[in-house]
Amino acid sequence: MPKIKLDLKVVKNLVYPYVPMLVGVNVGGKPNIITIGLIGWLCYDVLSISVGHQQYSKAGLLENGTFSINQPTAALVKELDYCGIVSGREADKASLFETFYGDLATAPMIRECPLNIECRVIQTLIRKVHTVFLGEVAAVHADESALTEGVPTIEKVEPVFYAPDPTRDRRSYGYWGLGERLGHAFEIGKEIERA
Amino acid sequence: MPKIKLDLKVVKNLVYPYVPMLVGVNVGGKPNIITIGLIGWLCYDVLSISVGHQQYSKAGLLENGTFSINQPTAALVKELDYCGIVSGREADKASLFETFYGDLATAPMIRECPLNIECRVIQTLIRKVHTVFLGEVAAVHADESALTEGVPTIEKVEPVFYAPDPTRDRRSYGYWGLGERLGHAFEIGKEIERA
Repeated sequence: MPKIKLDLKVVKNLVYPYVPMLVGVNVGGKPNIITIGLIGWLCYDVLSISVGHQQYSKAGLLENGTFSINQPTAALVKELDYCGIVSGREADKASLFETFYGDLATAPMIRECPLNIECRVIQTLIRKVHTVFLGEVAAVHADESALTEGVPTIEKVEPVFYAPDPTRDRRSYGYWGLGERLGHAFEIGKEIERA
Repeated sequence: MPKIKLDLKVVKNLVYPYVPMLVGVNVGGKPNIITIGLIGWLCYDVLSISVGHQQYSKAGLLENGTFSINQPTAALVKELDYCGIVSGREADKASLFETFYGDLATAPMIRECPLNIECRVIQTLIRKVHTVFLGEVAAVHADESALTEGVPTIEKVEPVFYAPDPTRDRRSYGYWGLGERLGHAFEIGKEIERA
């Protein structure tokens, strides 16, 4: 099958899919919540968030050096969308949720989200559109309802995915939920090994 | 709802979910394919891959400074699993696929994958278990069948997700497919804005 080389100007459409998160940042001593699609899972204990140069939360990130990542469930998809539409300059988005603080004291977390990760900024990467904040995991909090024998469980978390949706309109984006289980890891590949 | 603070030794289970990719690296001048769950989407044009310190492909990454990220579809889930089970030291995994090269000449790509991203290493981050290679996007290739008016389309790509599966066994992992569309982005949140 021939390949088409895509224009790098649309590269931002090539993350398949984003797993957007609700991110908590203190700004001027008050909690703000932002929706971030570009979350980097660098390794087991380093995550990153990508923040536009003009975004309201950037000053708080530079001031405190802390943030939280809060996993939205499918039930929170409207709040997820809202926190990506409205700026903290215009609205008190944290008031939509019950927020709490943990070990880092300045990384506000969302009680309604089943998983909450506190991060300490260890590095920044300044790019054309975004500053990328790399955060080392400091603590993780979970709802018991999201766990099975202490392990977070995807079917209980009900994650939300975000991607372009050009089937509707060339510039549309949409949200999707989790689908069917396709198979067991470290097992289904053994059929090829044996073949 | 009370929160449970989790042991950081299980933090590696907290990525909900991974979006695993087939990564192409030349090692000793020959293509090798590895499955990587920890893919970081740092910003529009920087991605990262996380490679264990003992992994076969690490030498090739350090030598060439290039790699590719290839999006598996649900139809490739067995191959995806296999390339995570078997080391390039033991098997010629690239022979499972038709590989090709692009602009960077040393980043082998997989023709069967609908999206292929060539990256040039710009930075490394050395952590306890992994070396994280940050790559700047150099070129993107796509199958026409994955596009709608030139835009990659998630329902055509049929992505694969990977997560712990403790409902089966405490240490199990599994693969899932994409689910239902939950709503339109930059729209459903407006209901909250108006409320």
